[in-house]
Amino acid sequence: MASQPKLGILAGAGELPLRVVEACRAADRPVFVLAFEGSADPACVVDVAHAWVRLGAAGEGLQILRDNGVEELVMAGGVKRPSLLALRPDWRTAKFFARVGYRALGDDGLLKAIIRELEEVEGFRVVGADTLLGDALAPAGPLGRHLPDAQAEADIALGFEVARALGRLDIGQAAIVQQGLVLGVEAIEGTDALIARCGPLRRAGRGGVLVKCAKPGQERRADLPTIGPGTVAAAAAAGLAGIAVSAGSTVLIDRAAIAGAADRAGLFVVGVLVP
Amino acid sequence: MASQPKLGILAGAGELPLRVVEACRAADRPVFVLAFEGSADPACVVDVAHAWVRLGAAGEGLQILRDNGVEELVMAGGVKRPSLLALRPDWRTAKFFARVGYRALGDDGLLKAIIRELEEVEGFRVVGADTLLGDALAPAGPLGRHLPDAQAEADIALGFEVARALGRLDIGQAAIVQQGLVLGVEAIEGTDALIARCGPLRRAGRGGVLVKCAKPGQERRADLPTIGPGTVAAAAAAGLAGIAVSAGSTVLIDRAAIAGAADRAGLFVVGVLVP
Repeated sequence: MASQPKLGILAGAGELPLRVVEACRAADRPVFVLAFEGSADPACVVDVAHAWVRLGAAGEGLQILRDNGVEELVMAGGVKRPSLLALRPDWRTAKFFARVGYRALGDDGLLKAIIRELEEVEGFRVVGADTLLGDALAPAGPLGRHLPDAQAEADIALGFEVARALGRLDIGQAAIVQQGLVLGVEAIEGTDALIARCGPLRRAGRGGVLVKCAKPGQERRADLPTIGPGTVAAAAAAGLAGIAVSAGSTVLIDRAAIAGAADRAGLFVVGVLVP
Repeated sequence: MASQPKLGILAGAGELPLRVVEACRAADRPVFVLAFEGSADPACVVDVAHAWVRLGAAGEGLQILRDNGVEELVMAGGVKRPSLLALRPDWRTAKFFARVGYRALGDDGLLKAIIRELEEVEGFRVVGADTLLGDALAPAGPLGRHLPDAQAEADIALGFEVARALGRLDIGQAAIVQQGLVLGVEAIEGTDALIARCGPLRRAGRGGVLVKCAKPGQERRADLPTIGPGTVAAAAAAGLAGIAVSAGSTVLIDRAAIAGAADRAGLFVVGVLVP
């Protein structure tokens, strides 16, 4: 069997880049991590060939990837999207943005344009992080032993309706619903901040539900919705009753740990097949 | 000219109830304020015939209104919508909710049902707060001397698209957009909380825009979007460049004070005709 080509990991925030590094190490696959300053966790570059670049330095980043023999790329972990001014784009970056229009694109639109550029102009193959992690996508059905009750099922249905409407506008991927009331919807602040601010907004009685859902037509090789044990802990701290995610399009960072955390906290975590 | 019938003011949060009281006083119109516990500002019942009731005590509230000879009603100021459990509905309230389905309705849906009940079952007339305040609705065009630039115009257009999508789902009325990025969208937390949390999310460069927009098909006699001088101050503190509201359907609490605050802070405030 031919050995696999060297994988370049474009590392943003969160645990996902480290999980990809670990999976490649376990499979003896060579990797190079291009870590984005201000986003990537330093833990994901320990004992791995790597370089740090700032987001606006695409020219430098592409040169480093080529110099290190990278053929295939994966985007792992989100980046805090800056204004064009704060980005200080280098010549290569500016040329790209002049062509696609930085401000005209939502997050998903921009990521799609970046992937197209990496493949069609720069000649890399771009793969989805979920294809590198075994068993990473949420299945349909419960992950732990707790199940949603009738009220939670109704909140889940409304949450998916809201999250999909947000996603259609490329705004965010998550909403929190309690007893039919939409307590909060996610934009650029991220899911952790959404959960934290909905804690004090909760009403008496049965807690609410966090719904995370891939955007309709979402580019699957970037920014799939992601949850981990930390999401469960945050949900429990905010008094939520459970979490529902789109099955087949949400990345689970450590499925067993998620199920264990949910069982201990008394929360349900379910994957839901979204049409 | 026949004297006007006594007006019952169902007083929720914010400055609007007090403004309605003042307008009636100036017009020598008799009023009775039914102030909701936990929502209404005590300032709106000073030197006015009034009673405090809790939200779930509709039977008591209706009796008080009749005992005081109220014929016409106005709903002024929002209330923090509780869970059904925290509402502790009395018999009259419970009967109503059993019929309309408390949990099945969004804010606007519930307000429409309440107004229908007050008019068709209880025999009151319900009027909009804007009809009692002269010059209260935002006109099309700028309120002060600052104007949106091209970037702000683009952010305003996106903000209205987002706010209308939220409104269609009866989630909220406001969004904040900066340089094409949706920094935040409003659900149950209210506009002041939205503005405050978007301050730390702002990107470098030109500040963002707060857009407030009536929900498509919104019941105009309740919960029209409202801004006041305090909204301008909060927007300035969060680093926003300006505010855009739906013309003809947003209540301005003190137009001159809004324009003055905007001029001093260097912000624009514009009314936009929304189709």
